[in-house]
Amino acid sequence: MKSDITQYNFPEDLKKMSVAEMEILSYSIRDFLIEKVSATGGHLASNLGVVELTLALHKMFDSPKDKIIWDVGHQAYVHKILTGRAGEFDTLRQLDGLSGFPKAKESKHDIYDTGHSSVSVSAAAGLAAARDLNNEKYEVIAVIGDGSLTGGMAYEGLNNIGDSKSKVIVILNDNGMSISPNTGGISKHLGNLRTSKGYLGAKKFVKNRLRTIPSIGKSLVNGLADFKNDIKYSIMDHGGVLFEELGFTYFGPVDGHNISDLLNVLSHAKSLDEPVLIHVITKKGKGYRNAESNPGKFHGIGPFDPTTGTLLQKKDGETFSSLFGRFITEKAEKDEKIVAITAAMCEATGLDKFSNKFPKRFFDVGIAEEHAVSFAAGLAKGGMKPVVCIYSSFLQRSYDQIMQDVCMQNLPVIFAIDRAGCVGADGETHHGMFDLSYLSTIPNMTVLAPKDGNELKAMLDFAFELNGPVAIRYPRGKANYDKEIMSTYSGGNIRVSQGERIDIWACGKMYDCGLKVCQILNSKGISAGLVEVASVKPLDLEPFYQLSHKPETIVTIEDNSLAGGFGTKLSSQLAGTATEVLKFGWPDEFVPQGTFEQLTDRFGLTPEKIAERICEHIERKA
Amino acid sequence: MKSDITQYNFPEDLKKMSVAEMEILSYSIRDFLIEKVSATGGHLASNLGVVELTLALHKMFDSPKDKIIWDVGHQAYVHKILTGRAGEFDTLRQLDGLSGFPKAKESKHDIYDTGHSSVSVSAAAGLAAARDLNNEKYEVIAVIGDGSLTGGMAYEGLNNIGDSKSKVIVILNDNGMSISPNTGGISKHLGNLRTSKGYLGAKKFVKNRLRTIPSIGKSLVNGLADFKNDIKYSIMDHGGVLFEELGFTYFGPVDGHNISDLLNVLSHAKSLDEPVLIHVITKKGKGYRNAESNPGKFHGIGPFDPTTGTLLQKKDGETFSSLFGRFITEKAEKDEKIVAITAAMCEATGLDKFSNKFPKRFFDVGIAEEHAVSFAAGLAKGGMKPVVCIYSSFLQRSYDQIMQDVCMQNLPVIFAIDRAGCVGADGETHHGMFDLSYLSTIPNMTVLAPKDGNELKAMLDFAFELNGPVAIRYPRGKANYDKEIMSTYSGGNIRVSQGERIDIWACGKMYDCGLKVCQILNSKGISAGLVEVASVKPLDLEPFYQLSHKPETIVTIEDNSLAGGFGTKLSSQLAGTATEVLKFGWPDEFVPQGTFEQLTDRFGLTPEKIAERICEHIERKA
Repeated sequence: MKSDITQYNFPEDLKKMSVAEMEILSYSIRDFLIEKVSATGGHLASNLGVVELTLALHKMFDSPKDKIIWDVGHQAYVHKILTGRAGEFDTLRQLDGLSGFPKAKESKHDIYDTGHSSVSVSAAAGLAAARDLNNEKYEVIAVIGDGSLTGGMAYEGLNNIGDSKSKVIVILNDNGMSISPNTGGISKHLGNLRTSKGYLGAKKFVKNRLRTIPSIGKSLVNGLADFKNDIKYSIMDHGGVLFEELGFTYFGPVDGHNISDLLNVLSHAKSLDEPVLIHVITKKGKGYRNAESNPGKFHGIGPFDPTTGTLLQKKDGETFSSLFGRFITEKAEKDEKIVAITAAMCEATGLDKFSNKFPKRFFDVGIAEEHAVSFAAGLAKGGMKPVVCIYSSFLQRSYDQIMQDVCMQNLPVIFAIDRAGCVGADGETHHGMFDLSYLSTIPNMTVLAPKDGNELKAMLDFAFELNGPVAIRYPRGKANYDKEIMSTYSGGNIRVSQGERIDIWACGKMYDCGLKVCQILNSKGISAGLVEVASVKPLDLEPFYQLSHKPETIVTIEDNSLAGGFGTKLSSQLAGTATEVLKFGWPDEFVPQGTFEQLTDRFGLTPEKIAERICEHIERKA
Repeated sequence: MKSDITQYNFPEDLKKMSVAEMEILSYSIRDFLIEKVSATGGHLASNLGVVELTLALHKMFDSPKDKIIWDVGHQAYVHKILTGRAGEFDTLRQLDGLSGFPKAKESKHDIYDTGHSSVSVSAAAGLAAARDLNNEKYEVIAVIGDGSLTGGMAYEGLNNIGDSKSKVIVILNDNGMSISPNTGGISKHLGNLRTSKGYLGAKKFVKNRLRTIPSIGKSLVNGLADFKNDIKYSIMDHGGVLFEELGFTYFGPVDGHNISDLLNVLSHAKSLDEPVLIHVITKKGKGYRNAESNPGKFHGIGPFDPTTGTLLQKKDGETFSSLFGRFITEKAEKDEKIVAITAAMCEATGLDKFSNKFPKRFFDVGIAEEHAVSFAAGLAKGGMKPVVCIYSSFLQRSYDQIMQDVCMQNLPVIFAIDRAGCVGADGETHHGMFDLSYLSTIPNMTVLAPKDGNELKAMLDFAFELNGPVAIRYPRGKANYDKEIMSTYSGGNIRVSQGERIDIWACGKMYDCGLKVCQILNSKGISAGLVEVASVKPLDLEPFYQLSHKPETIVTIEDNSLAGGFGTKLSSQLAGTATEVLKFGWPDEFVPQGTFEQLTDRFGLTPEKIAERICEHIERKA
C-alpha cells in the first residue's frame, strides 16, 4: 500500500488489490477527501458516503469500456481519484481546474456529463440501447441517489428500461437524504426496505420453507386462481416490489460500506441479462464525524478546518437568500394566505426560518421542480398566495409548467429565483444565465431583478399586489441591505442619472457595475447616464423615450446570456433609431466554473473592461 | 327522459336521476357526441370511453364546490354536456366557440385549464393543500389516463400526495392506450391488474381464509419477523401495490361502464379521509363500433360520416409529417445508425412507416418528453444518430434536457419538431409558437425552419452532416413537395430577390406569405426584395450586409411569438443602423383556437394585411 494515493496508477492498480487492501485504501481516500475538500471546498458528505461503492464498481467493472453514469455527479470525486485524477484535486472547482462534476473533456472515464438530477437512468437506457443495436458487449451502470428518485424523470427512465428488458444496472445509492432529508411516498417505501435487514437471506429461507407448507397450495382454490402465485411473488419480491413492478430485478438492501457484500451483489448483477436495480444503503458523511452528524452542512461546503469542521471563511453576512427568507417570513406573519414551495432546497433558498415558523404552509416537494410549479398553480387556484423558491438553473425543468399552468391561467404565483446569473464553482450545469431569456418568452409573466436587498423586499411587496405571475431573480451571495431605508417599487425601470453620449442600462445586481462604469466614463470626460433595469418584462423603455436628447449609444449590462436576454430585447426596439446598443452579458456558450470575479474578468464584464470597450467603440467611430 | 339532451338543466337534473335513467342518458350522450363530433371534428374516442364515469362523478360529487380536474382535458366533452354546455357543441373547437379542453373562462365547473399531460395530480395536490389550510370541506378529484401515467410528473404528484396524506381522489381512467398503445413497465403493471377480475371480492375472501390457516402464522418464525405481515400485506394490497407504496389506498379495478359499481366505489372513496386511487377500466370509443375497432383514428378526428366512420374531408395529401416520415425512413435504409424516438406520437409524427420497417431502431417512450431527450443523448453517446420527433408545444417539457444533456455535451441529436406555429383547433395549449424563442437561447443549438418539403429533406441531410444538435421545426398540415427537384441546403438564409425600399425576411412556412407580400408591394410600385429565412440560429444576416444599398425597412414574418422570436433577434442586430424593422408574428399572449386562416386574419398576419400595414408605415413616414 502506498502512503500517497496520488502515487497509484488507477484504475489498473485497483484491479490487483484484495478486499482487505481496498478496505485500507478506503481510509486513505477518506483522509485525502477531507484534506483536499477542506482546502478547496466542495461536495464532501456525499463523496464520503460512496467510497466503498466506487471502489467496488471500479474493481468489478472495466471503465471506460463499461460505462458508469453518475446521477447529478457531485458524488464523483472518488471516481475521479480512481481514474487517475487524484493529483488534480488542489484545483477542484477552480477556474480551469478539476470540475466538481463528471466532464467528458476531463477524462474518458467520465461517460456522461451530469449536473442536474434524475437523468442518469435515461442516459443509461440510451447507451444500453445503442450497445444492443451495435451488438457490442459492455455494462451500463447508473448510480442514482434516493433523492434523485423523487424526480419524475427517473421514473420515466426506469419505466422504459423495465419495458425494453435491456441490460442496465441501476445502483440506488440510498442515504435517506437528497440535500435536505427526503419527503414523499417513495422515500417511505425505501425506509421500509432499509429496516428489513437480512432480507436477501430471509428470501431464500422463505422460498425453501414454502415448499414444506402444503396448506398454502392446497386450501385456497375456488375463485382464487392466482393466490399461490401471488404469495410466491410477494415473498420473493416484496422487498423491491415497486421496482419489480417496473420491470427490474431487485437486489437489496446491501450495506454500502461492506466491500465484500458489494462485490458479491455486483458480480451477481453482472451475470444476469436483464434490468437490475441494486439497493445500496450508505451513510452520507461516512467516516468523518463532523459530516456524519451534520451531512447537510457538509453537502456543499466552503473551505473548513478539518479537525473542528468549522468554516474558515466567514459567511457572506446577509445574502439575497437569507434576506428573502426573512422578508417572506415577515410577510407570512401578516398574511396567512402566503405559502412557500421548494424543491429540496429549504436551507439554501433561505426558507429554514419560514419552514420552522409555518410548517403547514411550507412544502418541500423533493427534487420535483415540475410538480412544484403545478402544485403552486393548484394552491393559487385554491386561494393561496404561493411563492416557489427554486434555483434559476433547476427552474428550467419547469418551463412548460410555468407557461401552461401558471401563466396561461394567469395565476398569482411568485417565483423567487435564487442563484440567477453566475454561480461560481459549480460551473456550466449550475449557472443561472438563461432565466431572463426563457421567462421573457412567456405571455403574462412579469420578470424582475432587484439590485439589492432593499429592492428585493420592495419587489416582493409589489409582486403580492400584482395578482399575476411574477418572477424575481437574484444572484448567489452577498446583498446590500439597509433596514433603515424603506424602499418601494412600483414597476418599470428607473432613471438614476442623465448623460450626453452614453446611457448605461444595468440590470439587477449588475447595477453596481453599471454605476462604476458610469463613474469611470465621466471621470474621462465622457458624459454617461445611468438607468437601473429592475423590470425585464414588461420591457420599460420610458427612461429612453423621456430623454429629449437621445444618447449615441446605450450600453446594457446583465448577468444573463446575451442570447435572448435583456440587451437583445432592448436593442430589438431600437432598430431604425440613431442610437446604437452595446450589449454586455455572458456569451452564447456554456460558461465554465470560476469565481464571479475571475469569470467577469475573463469574459470582459468587469467595470474596467466594459468602460474600456466603450472607449474603444467611441474612438473607432470618431 | 328528454329526447334532446340540450333541454336538461345539468348538473341539477342529473342529481334526481336513478341509475336506470342515467343508463338511458348514457345512450343519448353517446348519440349526441357522435352527431356533434362527426360534424365539427374533435376528440371522440376518449370521450365515448368516459360517459358513465363522468355521469357517476357528477352524480356523486357537487361540482363546482367539489373540484374535478381533467388531465390533458380532451376527455372533458361529457363533463361539458353535464355542466350546461350541450347547446354550444356546434361551435366545438372553432374560433370563439366551445373549447375542446377545460377552460375556466367558459364555466365555473372547469376548475383547472389543462392541455398537456400528467399535471392533474399536482394541481389536485395544490387545491387539496389550499382546502386544508383554509379549513374548507370539499372533494378534489383528478381524472388521469393510464397514458398520462407514463409522464414522470404524475409520479412526482402521487409521491407528494401519498406523503402529505391529504384527501385527494385520483381516478385512473385505464383504457390501455394513450394515443398510441402504451409502453413501459407501469403499463404492464396495469395490464396485470386489469386481468385480475373480481379482485375486490377475492381480497375479502383471502383475508377471511387467512385466519383459518394457522400454519402461516405459526410455522415461520426465526429470523423472519416480518413474514406474517408481509403475507397479509401482499394479499390485501398486491393489486395496487405500486400505488399503495406511494401512500394511496387503492380500489379496483372497477368496470368503468357500470354506473352502479362506479357509484359504489366513489361513495366508498368519499367516506375515507386519505389519498385514494380508483382504478377504472374503460374502453376507448365505447358504444360506437367504428371507434371501438379503431380508437387511434377516432382519438382526434376531423368531420366524418357517422354511419361509416369515413372522413368527409380528404386528407391534406402530403404533409410535413408524412414527408418527414418518408425521408427519415429513406435515410435510415442507407444509414443503420439512425434511430427515431417519439413520445406517444408515432403516427401523428409520420413515424409509422419507420416503426414498421425498423422496429428495433424505433423507440416510443410514452408521454415522457424529458426522458425522450436524455435517452436520445445516451444513444448519441453510444454512437447512434438519434432523431427526436415531438410536437413543438410538448417539447417545452424538455427545455432543460435539451440544454443540459444534448447541447452542453454538443451531441448530434436531431429534433424533428412537428406542429410548430399555429396548430388550429386545439388552441392555446397546443400552439407551437415558442420554439424559435426558447431554442434560440440555448448554446450550440442550430435552429432551422424549412419552407417546404424539398427543403425539409435537404435540411435533414444537412443536419446529419453537422455533428451537433439541430432543431428542424415545421408546421401542421400540407407541404409543397416536388420529388423531381433535388434541393440542397448548406446553412444560412437565402436571398431570393432584391428590392429598393423594403426587404422581406420570411421564416419557414411563412415564405409563401412573404412572397405574396412582396408581389403586392411591387404591384403597387413599392420596390420590395425577399429573403427566405431558413436558419434562425445561427442568425445569418449576410443577405442584409451584402446589399450595397440598404433598405429603409426590413419586414420579418414568422409563425412564432414575437417575444424572443426571429424578428426580435434580427432587429436586435440592427439598432443604430438606419434600417427600421417591422415585425410580424404572434403577439405576446396566448393565441386562441381557430383555423390558421382565421387566426392569421384576426392577428393581421395574412399577406394582404401585412402589405397594408407596410403601406401605412410608409405613408406615415412620408
